[in-house]
Amino acid sequence: MSKNVHDAAYDLEKALGESDDFQELKSLYAQVNADESVKSMFDNFRNMQVELQQKQMQGEQISEDEAQKAQQLFELVQQNDVISKLMSAEQRVSMLIQDINKIVTKPLEELYGTPEQPEQ
Amino acid sequence: MSKNVHDAAYDLEKALGESDDFQELKSLYAQVNADESVKSMFDNFRNMQVELQQKQMQGEQISEDEAQKAQQLFELVQQNDVISKLMSAEQRVSMLIQDINKIVTKPLEELYGTPEQPEQ
Repeated sequence: MSKNVHDAAYDLEKALGESDDFQELKSLYAQVNADESVKSMFDNFRNMQVELQQKQMQGEQISEDEAQKAQQLFELVQQNDVISKLMSAEQRVSMLIQDINKIVTKPLEELYGTPEQPEQ
Repeated sequence: MSKNVHDAAYDLEKALGESDDFQELKSLYAQVNADESVKSMFDNFRNMQVELQQKQMQGEQISEDEAQKAQQLFELVQQNDVISKLMSAEQRVSMLIQDINKIVTKPLEELYGTPEQPEQ
């Protein structure tokens, strides 16, 4: 018999929380938060990112001025070693979560098909 | 040592695919698809739902006429026993997936906090 869905989900939560990728993310996040000026720089960048994403999701145009400002802020925060490492770690964890979602929702994908991709 | 994240995700996929809720959904979905007229009614309803959701996500207003049409189509499909059961099964599986997501992403929630809810 297969394991209970909730038990399996808790096992996965544990595996994710204890994974190297997540542990590194946690450590870098703590390092950024421990330094007030680094934290403030990172928060500014994050807020700007969220703002632009919300605009895109609502189908609003992002102006050239906004895009340029975002690029400049990105280059600025990237120069900070800890922030740069944190952003790489976030990307790795984000890819891990994407992997997890793809694997876990496979039964649904097989049932409904993937409308984005034409069937073979 | 904790299990590998991908292995844990595959275990969860298996548990979800073999769960009673998912198996019932699969069986009802097959029943709907086996009857051309029922399938066509359900497809119409589903397409209308997707269309309205896309409008909402893009911040567009849904007209009173559209809302009324949607309600009528909903009442019509609900009268079909298999479709009605299928929609209940879909809701149960959807809640199961929500549960799974909440459990699995808990390490991230603990790290970043939940901006939607004010902290206690």
